[in-house]
Parts: sequence; C-alpha cells; structure tokens
Amino acid sequence: MTDRHTIDDSSVVYAFSPDLEPSVTVEPRAALTVETRDSLEGAVQRDGDLMESVPEEVNAATGPIAVEGAEPGDALRVEIEAIRPTEDRGRAVTIPGFGLLRDDPEVAHPHTRVTPVEDGALRFGDLSVPLDPCIGTIGVATADEEYTTLVPHDHGGNLDTTDLRAGATVYFPVFQPGGLLAMGDCKAAMADGEHCGTGAEIATEIDVTLGVVGDAPLSRPLIETDDAWTFLASAETLQTACELAVRDASEALARAHGGEFTDAYLLASLIADLEISQVVDPLKTVRCAVPKGYLADPLD
Amino acid sequence: MTDRHTIDDSSVVYAFSPDLEPSVTVEPRAALTVETRDSLEGAVQRDGDLMESVPEEVNAATGPIAVEGAEPGDALRVEIEAIRPTEDRGRAVTIPGFGLLRDDPEVAHPHTRVTPVEDGALRFGDLSVPLDPCIGTIGVATADEEYTTLVPHDHGGNLDTTDLRAGATVYFPVFQPGGLLAMGDCKAAMADGEHCGTGAEIATEIDVTLGVVGDAPLSRPLIETDDAWTFLASAETLQTACELAVRDASEALARAHGGEFTDAYLLASLIADLEISQVVDPLKTVRCAVPKGYLADPLD
Repeated sequence: MTDRHTIDDSSVVYAFSPDLEPSVTVEPRAALTVETRDSLEGAVQRDGDLMESVPEEVNAATGPIAVEGAEPGDALRVEIEAIRPTEDRGRAVTIPGFGLLRDDPEVAHPHTRVTPVEDGALRFGDLSVPLDPCIGTIGVATADEEYTTLVPHDHGGNLDTTDLRAGATVYFPVFQPGGLLAMGDCKAAMADGEHCGTGAEIATEIDVTLGVVGDAPLSRPLIETDDAWTFLASAETLQTACELAVRDASEALARAHGGEFTDAYLLASLIADLEISQVVDPLKTVRCAVPKGYLADPLD
Repeated sequence: MTDRHTIDDSSVVYAFSPDLEPSVTVEPRAALTVETRDSLEGAVQRDGDLMESVPEEVNAATGPIAVEGAEPGDALRVEIEAIRPTEDRGRAVTIPGFGLLRDDPEVAHPHTRVTPVEDGALRFGDLSVPLDPCIGTIGVATADEEYTTLVPHDHGGNLDTTDLRAGATVYFPVFQPGGLLAMGDCKAAMADGEHCGTGAEIATEIDVTLGVVGDAPLSRPLIETDDAWTFLASAETLQTACELAVRDASEALARAHGGEFTDAYLLASLIADLEISQVVDPLKTVRCAVPKGYLADPLD
C-alpha cells in the first residue's frame, strides 16, 4: 500500500548554500524514509576513539531533496513521523575548542563516552538514559550565504533542538526553488543546551512526509507540536536569538488577534516560554513556544 | 492547631547586602505566611497608569527574616506551600530602557495592560490566561556586595523563575548568620524569559516553611521540584550563566556518582536541560534541571 521512498545516506551535504543541486526530486506530500549517518561518520566506536579536533567535514546531512512546486515565499513542511536508530551505540564526546565548558581546566578535551543501546535505553556506566531521538541538523538551501552544516541560521541547519522529534512538524522558509531539504546529525538522547557539544550521536532512519505551504509569512524555522507553535531563532549571542524569537512570536500573536504589537509582546511575556535549544554551535539557538490556545495557525 | 506566623508587608528591603538587620527572627521549621506588595507598589491600577522610568525603589521584598541557628556554610531551605494573590488585578508593563525589546521601534515604552483576575484566570482582552503564581524576588543577605532587589545573583534576588511556585522548595547558601530571607515581586502568571520586563505583577500572601541544612555544598540557589534538582545561575550574559549552571549540575553529578568531572559533564549533556528563567533583570538567570532519577540529593 505504501509508496514510501527511501533516500539513502550516500548523497550528503556539509554546507547549506543558495546553489545546492538536488540529489532527488519528489512530489509534494511525498512520504520518505531518510537514512542519516552519525554526525562523526563512524569515527568513534569505542571510548578510546578520541576527537582531536572538529573535522573539516562533519554533520553530514542527507539530501538535498527538492520538492516540486516549492517556490521562494512558500514554506516547506516536514512532518517527522519516526526516528529509528540504526546502530547499537551512541557516542558523546568533548573536542578541543568546542563545547560550553571548552575553557574549563577540569574538563578533559578530547574525551569520549560510547553509550550502548540496550533495551530501549542508552547505558551510561551504571545509569540508563531513555532513548528519545531528535534530529540535530535539518534545513534548506539558503537565500544568500553559505553555512556549514555545523551552523544554524534562518535556513535551519544545526538547530540541535529536542522538539525535532517524532510527532512534531517543522516548517522552513523556502529560499530557492524546490526548497532543497537535507537532514542528519541525529541524537539518541540530548538535553536542551547540548552542553558538551554533542548529544548521544547516532545513525538513524527518519520517516517524514513533506509538503508545501503557499505564501507563508515565515522568516525562520517554526515547529508545530501537539500543544504549541514554537518560533526558532539562531544568532551570535543567546540574547540576540531571544530577541528574534520573541519578536517573531509577538508578531504572530499580533496578526492573530489584530492588536497592537506592544500588547502582543506583553501577552508573550505572560504565556510564551523562551527555551534554550543549544549553546555551542557556535551560533546559539533558542525558541519561543506559543501555546495553541493563543494562536491557531501562524502560517495562515 | 497551626501556629503559622504572619509577616506583614510593612517591613521591606530594596537591596540585599551583607548587613541586613532582621525585622523578625524565627525558629527553624517556622511556618510563615509572608505578605508581599506588587512589584510596582500599587502605582499601576488602570491601563492609563504608565511607568515613565524604573522607580528608584522597586521590587519590595518583605523581611528580612532571620532563622535561628543558620550559619555561613549552611543552606536555608524554603518550602513554598502556597502563593495566593490578594488583589483583583495584575499588571504587565513596558518601561523606557527596560525589557528584551527595549530598542525595538515598534514597541511602545511606556505601555500598561492591567489584567483583571476573573474566575481563577487573568483576563487579557478576549483571552484568558490561567493563574499560575510564582515568586519573582527571593533571597538572603549577601557575602560581600550589595545588590538592589532588581538584580539576581548568588544570593538569589530577582530570579524571576517560574519554578518558584507552590510545591517547590528552594535552597539558598547562608552567607550571614540567620540567613536573612526576604521575598516579594510575585507574578500571577509569567512566561520563562519575562520578555517585556514583567509578568502579571500582583500582591500576594505566600505560605512557606523554613529550615536549615547544615554544611551544604551550595554556591548559588537550588530548586527542588517533584521531578528535578534545578541549579540556578545569574550572570552578565546568558552564556556565562549557562556555564555556571552546567558546571554546578555536573559537579553534583560527579559527587553523586563518584566519577570524573568530564563524564558528569557528558552525562549532563544528555539529561540535564538548560532552561531560561529571565533575560531582562539586567543580569540574566538560567537553570539546569537534573532529573531526580540521576541525582538523589545534591545537598548530602
């Protein structure tokens, strides 16, 4: 019955740019299974496998996938239906010059902990960490600049956002015809913040269904969950990212309720939580979550 | 049966310093009801009441309350049992030079929205925001410096943290004999971030039970909820606050599990969410929440 199409991980990108060439072109409403490599490309299999530096090519993103009919000004819709780890271990690492505590003399750089997958959880010494997979890197061709897949920005990229899990839908602004979606860098588990610079990095298969929303008022990635519309923003500092995310959320509230922008900003201060996605990439990503009770559909 | 003691709001402080004088001295395990003024001291009752500038004396904190036997090196425990609004309205405001979007030309400064309390919720135009009271400012006498009640730091102060709600317990390092606790600046509702610089500010009565934990390894405020131990940190930038909170959480994990600090840091990157408290005060406050399954008691 299903005509779900598999996109294998032989075609990947290491940068999002305006001139990506599609590895495959699909129709709107395409149901896909996308294979993704672990972000360290198999280089870390044991605790003794250390990352002496950030590799030149890292965070392979499978794609690019062009969607027929997606045009600049539209939004690309990605329903995340499942994220299945396809190997028996994740890995968390420190890398010299990388991570929140990169300058802390008590933190060893490099250092590796391989986390075996056992009975639906990750083993970390005597502790068990539930599997809760999320997508680290997902985005589309950019408007102008080129960003490596290590960096997040308005096109998505290395968002490292725990909300990018099964059941969520993420929307990206379309900057180039076809959108040109790519994804990878999945985590078997990760905390908001991604403090050390990684979650438990793992190879996966991701089931997604794609779509196109015409003429969508969207400047940056937007996530829909059961409960909330969540506005993502990435910037040099957490403070600037917070400003962008709160501004986008307030604008959507003002459009929805027809009021003054200032009133929407005050309302956001009561109901729209600012949340940390990641603090290490090196641009930082935050999000502002507006409960759906206050906002029916910001893409209308 | 109860000998709950009421601390009225006639004795307040506008700064936390090393040399606070107690307005009252209580025994450990004292059950108190603490009256708190709204942070704007009744100056805003209608939408037309505008805050032209941040008042010199703002965020009145009721106290200081000395606890017998609390000595430097101990922790002061504050079980928050209830927070009851005692007036029929909250207020959210912008103030010139204050708030996340203070420089945004689309935001009016000053601007006020009074939010009437009706049927257990705040009315905001046609919208209804559930009452979910939290304490904005709570802290103890400092080690050295003086901080106005507008500022958060290691002593607590203007933490503006939504976790400071009924059911939570908060611990502060004791820097001066007696601890010298004061609290106020409650919100009827507030989002993580406190974007505009306020929640819905409201006068309350707070039921607390105090206690002293001897010889506690605590540098900054710590919150215990049903699910997590949450390490708070305030600093000039969100990034620095994140470093402090993740460091404290990682140290507690390393102590609990007897491992290397680096391993605890990697574990934190998988399980200990970084969360935003507030981005406006003007020091910023974040928190790092360690689920109790990984940490039995960091004060042991």
